[in-house]
Amino acid sequence: MRLRNNPEAIDILQAHDNICFINPKDMPNTWSKVFGNDHPIYIEIGMGKGDFILENAKRYPEINFIGIEKYTTVMAIALKKALKEEVPSNLRYLKEDAVMLSEVFGEGEVSQIFLNFSDPWPKKRHAKRRLTYPSYLDIYKHILKKEGHIIFKTDNRGLFEYSLSSFANYGMHFNDVCLDLHHSEGYEDNIMTEYERKFSPKGPIYRADVNMKE
Amino acid sequence: MRLRNNPEAIDILQAHDNICFINPKDMPNTWSKVFGNDHPIYIEIGMGKGDFILENAKRYPEINFIGIEKYTTVMAIALKKALKEEVPSNLRYLKEDAVMLSEVFGEGEVSQIFLNFSDPWPKKRHAKRRLTYPSYLDIYKHILKKEGHIIFKTDNRGLFEYSLSSFANYGMHFNDVCLDLHHSEGYEDNIMTEYERKFSPKGPIYRADVNMKE
Repeated sequence: MRLRNNPEAIDILQAHDNICFINPKDMPNTWSKVFGNDHPIYIEIGMGKGDFILENAKRYPEINFIGIEKYTTVMAIALKKALKEEVPSNLRYLKEDAVMLSEVFGEGEVSQIFLNFSDPWPKKRHAKRRLTYPSYLDIYKHILKKEGHIIFKTDNRGLFEYSLSSFANYGMHFNDVCLDLHHSEGYEDNIMTEYERKFSPKGPIYRADVNMKE
Repeated sequence: MRLRNNPEAIDILQAHDNICFINPKDMPNTWSKVFGNDHPIYIEIGMGKGDFILENAKRYPEINFIGIEKYTTVMAIALKKALKEEVPSNLRYLKEDAVMLSEVFGEGEVSQIFLNFSDPWPKKRHAKRRLTYPSYLDIYKHILKKEGHIIFKTDNRGLFEYSLSSFANYGMHFNDVCLDLHHSEGYEDNIMTEYERKFSPKGPIYRADVNMKE
């Protein structure tokens, strides 16, 4: 998501540099040290205002979560929300562009990737910018553990149609596809994003759970 | 589809044995002879009352069509509809169970397979009966040309969710996925089945176009 730039946002992030990492260098294979344990690492690429990753961190203390966002202003909003209570010790924020993620994570360092309501880039000439375009799948394949899953949610039909084909044609394994998440059994533990809460009454939420084949 | 059995149906089919093939033997690699030309062969597995395959045959005279149905009573209805006008010379009917199709077609004899509104078999223990279960994909792979497509339409969300996973996990290539056929651009040449005409106002029609990878 994009918002009008807030020039003070960067100050807020820098004031919490134990929680927030801003375009960091030399990070691959150091995240266990950051968290102080060897728990699995789940990341959300494009966390927006951060409700989803914060709720995950609270609910699953045995998993380390990293919320990734490329816009400083948006990340500052997520941070401020988290600061209203004690920030969970298993949560970090990373300001970075998705295209840089293999510079930030080592090979197989990530156990799960969440893509929630990513920018659909509906024009065909912008397909390369979609977070499910093959060049991004290359990055995910590099940073994910072999058995690591990608959980993808969107309300954008065009993006979901595109992404199913992109996953399949990349040779990925489909664990689960759901074409109406909020009217299906078996997803009672679904954690909603801000966007999802707002838009799910207007149409179906699509979800895919996929992983790289061995 | 199933209907109450009509004992006279078999007589009607047998009276038109130039058009109708009833559990035939020794058919593989003979269909070009049946049609009298080498045009590509498109088949519909589970044609029901046959509107779809009849309309296809009229619209595309350079393609040979075979409507396949396992119930005699249903097939007799399709035949009677076709007989109201002159039956197109590029159309045949085949009474056969899908599980037998590699006994009826030779390797690579079929250029395209249509699966329209197949029985969803919603219970998990009946998954093997779904026409997109891997054992059926084995049959389709055998009878389809290497570049041959499967075009699958359904309004049943559970069956479509299952089938997407089944196609992907079989290693098939996704050419196109559409999650709301009747509200999408680019499908103006869609030919509706009787069922589709009746049920499309009630919810989305899903469509996938897939093929075997080289």
